[in-house]
Amino acid sequence: MSNPDFDLTRLFGTGLPDPSPRFAGFPEFNFIGGHNDPEHIPIEGLIEAAASVLRREGGSLAMYNLGRGPQGYPGLRDFLADKLKRHRGIDCGRDDIMITTGSGQGIDMVSRLLVDPGETVILEECCYAGAINRFKRIGAKIVGTKLDEHGICIDALTTLLDELKSKGVTPKCIYTIPTIQNPTGSILPLERRHALLALARERGIAIFEDECYADLLWVRAAPPSLYSLAPDQVVHIGSFSKSLAPALRIGYCVASWPVLSRLLAMKTDGGTGALDQMIVAEYFTRSFDTHVEHLSAVLREKLDTMVEAVEREFGTAVEMWRPEGGIFLWLKLPDQVDVTKLVKPAAQAGIAFNPGPEWACDPATAKSSMRLCFALPSKQQIKDGVAALARVCFEETGIPPRSANVGNVRA
Amino acid sequence: MSNPDFDLTRLFGTGLPDPSPRFAGFPEFNFIGGHNDPEHIPIEGLIEAAASVLRREGGSLAMYNLGRGPQGYPGLRDFLADKLKRHRGIDCGRDDIMITTGSGQGIDMVSRLLVDPGETVILEECCYAGAINRFKRIGAKIVGTKLDEHGICIDALTTLLDELKSKGVTPKCIYTIPTIQNPTGSILPLERRHALLALARERGIAIFEDECYADLLWVRAAPPSLYSLAPDQVVHIGSFSKSLAPALRIGYCVASWPVLSRLLAMKTDGGTGALDQMIVAEYFTRSFDTHVEHLSAVLREKLDTMVEAVEREFGTAVEMWRPEGGIFLWLKLPDQVDVTKLVKPAAQAGIAFNPGPEWACDPATAKSSMRLCFALPSKQQIKDGVAALARVCFEETGIPPRSANVGNVRA
Repeated sequence: MSNPDFDLTRLFGTGLPDPSPRFAGFPEFNFIGGHNDPEHIPIEGLIEAAASVLRREGGSLAMYNLGRGPQGYPGLRDFLADKLKRHRGIDCGRDDIMITTGSGQGIDMVSRLLVDPGETVILEECCYAGAINRFKRIGAKIVGTKLDEHGICIDALTTLLDELKSKGVTPKCIYTIPTIQNPTGSILPLERRHALLALARERGIAIFEDECYADLLWVRAAPPSLYSLAPDQVVHIGSFSKSLAPALRIGYCVASWPVLSRLLAMKTDGGTGALDQMIVAEYFTRSFDTHVEHLSAVLREKLDTMVEAVEREFGTAVEMWRPEGGIFLWLKLPDQVDVTKLVKPAAQAGIAFNPGPEWACDPATAKSSMRLCFALPSKQQIKDGVAALARVCFEETGIPPRSANVGNVRA
Repeated sequence: MSNPDFDLTRLFGTGLPDPSPRFAGFPEFNFIGGHNDPEHIPIEGLIEAAASVLRREGGSLAMYNLGRGPQGYPGLRDFLADKLKRHRGIDCGRDDIMITTGSGQGIDMVSRLLVDPGETVILEECCYAGAINRFKRIGAKIVGTKLDEHGICIDALTTLLDELKSKGVTPKCIYTIPTIQNPTGSILPLERRHALLALARERGIAIFEDECYADLLWVRAAPPSLYSLAPDQVVHIGSFSKSLAPALRIGYCVASWPVLSRLLAMKTDGGTGALDQMIVAEYFTRSFDTHVEHLSAVLREKLDTMVEAVEREFGTAVEMWRPEGGIFLWLKLPDQVDVTKLVKPAAQAGIAFNPGPEWACDPATAKSSMRLCFALPSKQQIKDGVAALARVCFEETGIPPRSANVGNVRA
């Protein structure tokens, strides 16, 4: 029966991505990816939540979308409406929220909603690689706008929009992460939020607000979300990947019904996984504030460990952007360091980091920058991994010349 | 701050689907959708599974893909390898399996893998509407091939391929549901499986095998899957929506590595929901055979209730395709009945059914057919709903002239 000549791969369509390699496991010092701290998954809380919600509503698993329609499990949307009001100033109800299969699905849908191929989108000059790649994939022209330690610089954005206007270009939307910007970790102050919204309104540009890190703050005092200040101008997304666990695939989108009804029509996945939704809703309805406060404190300690390690190992050779929350540290080495050349030797030493150019609209501007995530590794791994990274960097570039206040010598 | 003139909908891109309506709840007699029986969700089993798997591996939720790579939770793939070997004759290991976010994601990915716009695909003449729509959406030309009560007719397919060849057309793939065909409920006999594979091999056509209903059989004696007979020719997908619960979004794909590695590269969702995967794996590793045998017996009783109701209410006016498993009954009314004209009056009477034309490659050929799903409604709802449907049909078409052996009179 079998025919040695049959080759299914010859029937593949065109334009496919390259094949994936076999998964080879994580490196010893894994400073990439939005992973969380495995020691702080609330296992018993999730087990109790599973028992409670399944006994109450488990039969509804027999129906697509639990028989409650494509916007997602109502209990999760009710929890979100409460959380978003208390923490992010958003006045919305369950009908204003759509659950997404990860916030990545939200980015996929909102980008498609607003942007046709060839249209221009404004991103923060350093920005989440997933968003950069998504906008590029749908054929958008991406333009980065300047950041300082407080986020988007309004004057620079005004100048940029004027320049684009003089070329006849009106951007379609501004994608921004105002609360714990990725990768710089800043929080946009209230007056800049108002100024950003006024500018975007005046120019007729939509705001796409991604708040996936906004639950993890060192100080619980971020200004209200952009959506809360101008719901008619903004599409708001968020996630449970950072506040609870990224292996769950649950995000959410908040928007006015004319927007949400279009996004719903683009959600063709038959709903978001129900056990993920139900268990998270049940657990967080009881324990959200306690959990995120505890987790934020744990993460802040890990950040401190990482900052100390970077100072010890890299000394004055490095500039750090101290994040105000979240799970990553953005840092810059001297201009002569090209971090892309460190990726391979670092991997050989068991270290993975995010090279800055992948996290920037104009890769050249972040040639010497890198992002280090600190949630997954233990404190010991952070110390050892940063030391190992400094050794790799010195071997390749001669920088840093001193580690732990001792001069480095090439091996 | 707010500007009454700002209208975000004016910034929408082109080519978007129409907005979704607000979800209005299910009708009283809901005979559509792949829903299951809410009375037979194994709630206590799922609760025990959740506790057991979370205590053992809950910490890994902190990592994307549980830290185990994009093919999916290894425990679920191990269970699948065992199940597929015992029930479907497939000799594979966890490395040959990719978990998908519902089998719909599998259809999305495999269709894109194999078919470029303008290329031709063979489907069964009556076929899953989701697959028909997906192939149309990616610009494929779809051609239906003849079915009888045992599935694809090989002679007719041979003739069809000859006709296409004479026009210079070689189809790219044959999408088939050989085990509990949707909507006719047939099982393709072993000799036809061999003949189908030989024909496809000879003509250089890939087989895309969808076995999402193959776990729900009245008699546990289906021939082995097409994939098991010719793994080099076939991409195989399946689902847990039917064997357990559709609110879960878990499906799977089995293929050789050159195929699977391409599909993996197309899976850009950050993984499939982990709690869904872990809890199902833990529950089914212990209880799969018991559960599907029990569920199949329950469904067969509901089918019997529906068949009796259809015979009682429609009498000789109807031809039924008796399914050999699954959750739906395909039936045909006399040629003068146009079922699309029954949709609205049926809805007004609280009845939803799948009109045949939506389940056919050539809608005209199924003008008088409909699909009735029997898993969700209770036996009483099945009896009352079929009686109500017969009344609607009589009011609109004069058919059936007799119900419950009493002559019908127009109201």
